[in-house]
Amino acid sequence: MTSATQSVKAIIEAAGEHVPVLLGQVERRLATLAAGHGPVLAEHAGATIAAGGKRLRPLLVLLAAGRVPEDPRELLACAAAVELVHSATLVHDDVLDAAALRRGLPTVWAQGGRALAVATGDLLFSRAFAELAAVGTLAAVRALSRATSALAEGELLQRQDAWNAAVAVERYLYRCELKTARLFEASCELGALAGGGDGAHVSALGAFGRRIGLAFQLLDDVLDVSGPAADTGKHRGTDLLDGTMTLPLILARRRDDALAAMDLREITTPRQATALCERIEATGALSDAKAQALAIVVEAKEGLAALELEPGQRLALGLVADSVVERHA
Amino acid sequence: MTSATQSVKAIIEAAGEHVPVLLGQVERRLATLAAGHGPVLAEHAGATIAAGGKRLRPLLVLLAAGRVPEDPRELLACAAAVELVHSATLVHDDVLDAAALRRGLPTVWAQGGRALAVATGDLLFSRAFAELAAVGTLAAVRALSRATSALAEGELLQRQDAWNAAVAVERYLYRCELKTARLFEASCELGALAGGGDGAHVSALGAFGRRIGLAFQLLDDVLDVSGPAADTGKHRGTDLLDGTMTLPLILARRRDDALAAMDLREITTPRQATALCERIEATGALSDAKAQALAIVVEAKEGLAALELEPGQRLALGLVADSVVERHA
Repeated sequence: MTSATQSVKAIIEAAGEHVPVLLGQVERRLATLAAGHGPVLAEHAGATIAAGGKRLRPLLVLLAAGRVPEDPRELLACAAAVELVHSATLVHDDVLDAAALRRGLPTVWAQGGRALAVATGDLLFSRAFAELAAVGTLAAVRALSRATSALAEGELLQRQDAWNAAVAVERYLYRCELKTARLFEASCELGALAGGGDGAHVSALGAFGRRIGLAFQLLDDVLDVSGPAADTGKHRGTDLLDGTMTLPLILARRRDDALAAMDLREITTPRQATALCERIEATGALSDAKAQALAIVVEAKEGLAALELEPGQRLALGLVADSVVERHA
Repeated sequence: MTSATQSVKAIIEAAGEHVPVLLGQVERRLATLAAGHGPVLAEHAGATIAAGGKRLRPLLVLLAAGRVPEDPRELLACAAAVELVHSATLVHDDVLDAAALRRGLPTVWAQGGRALAVATGDLLFSRAFAELAAVGTLAAVRALSRATSALAEGELLQRQDAWNAAVAVERYLYRCELKTARLFEASCELGALAGGGDGAHVSALGAFGRRIGLAFQLLDDVLDVSGPAADTGKHRGTDLLDGTMTLPLILARRRDDALAAMDLREITTPRQATALCERIEATGALSDAKAQALAIVVEAKEGLAALELEPGQRLALGLVADSVVERHA
């Protein structure tokens, strides 16, 4: 059993036995949705959703709700919707990156080509909104559309800043917020809304989600430099080869003049990327980036203290925050 | 002045002077949305929306509403949303088709590449739902998400059926319904909803939209074969070169054994495509496909007879139906 699986297990135990029951229902709902729109979608979206991993975003929805509402349909729709959006993003990202593999499996792009992958992503996006519109509220649709807009804006920002060595830390953090943190935020907001929370409660849980999402992305970017490849299915320095400026490189450039003078476009092979990763690591930038992420997780957990939560809910949300860190320990 | 511009002018005159006022507000709203999400979107989405053409879908929203509601914000949001979805589809279609030009202007794909175009389309989709969620109703979000799901399913169906000479007429019509008619249907439904119509009224206006959308697509496919290129900015037979089976070819294959035996994959040059178009035309398939479209327009107009509509509204909707035909006269 991997440490990630262990921590999810601990979270579910803390949250109470209703959580695995609801997660199972979300899983069945996702499978039904993937199967219900023709054979092409069934094959490709089904595989994408099945390969989707830890269901961290649906878990956040369920945990943010606290007690299960009498009619859990809205809550389940919210949990399915955030995973559908996440899956749509993965499918489109693989088109953008021309990625052949994801988690060791062929991507929709690799199997069916650009057209199929763009349309599959579009359909997953549409089904997410259809889920919420069927049993949700306008407030829920608003929260989700804010997050999907942010995802696309983040992608545009990333392309705009590609190969630009002068990107500031603030700009990098803003991109992480758009690309990752906002969907975590929306997951918590949707759960809190479905759980009947008032505006302040919804915002506070949203802030928790945004923070752990930001830490998640920072640590993901640290992992790209630190490796090992076995854990992520990627080579070290994949982002750098794409021209994506991440925090480790931004920090390292301040400390190593040769790095600062280097043009990222000259790094074109995995071997060069590995050498660059080692050079970044030698500056201490990885530890500093990690420390920055851990501080954000601490802040996220401190934010929970002021909230009225069920005891199991508080414990479980804290464990989710810890699991973001553990994943990269 | 082109005949298309003339017919839009006639429609607006019939509908009453509130329609150009509202269309102007929709235009400003679209410009604001395109400008409000960073410089990259402003450049590319702004150009796409500006080049978007006749605003037929927003016009349907406004006409389906009938009288202007006291607070027109929901109606305006619906009109903007359908145009945003249409623009998103155009941007993604250009990625799918690797199209360099649209209406004589460079596409987002050609100017900024695949990644930029996918993200721009995603952002336009997201903003469409955000518009509706801000001032609309869940019923409106439902109608829009049905249409966006259908668009993506239609795209998947088209890819699945590409190069398949055995595609049946029914399957072709279903694809047209998904790819085109459902967004016309949603436009009318959204307008009718915002105008305060009851369920039956909303459905009946939706059926009108679906029919003229279907006729629109059939006639578009006729135009691909009949040309002339000057009108569409495309060469004759573009669909055939893409492997897209359309009604003219399906009908022509029944009448010309040599066409029936031909493998579409052997048609690879514009010159071959033109020769194939002439051969299809010689079978009379174009006239028959056009007649089928005109019959659907007649059916659409007949459906209006049973509805309670404002006099100007009835006249204007009839003129919209006629304009679909005139465009291809």
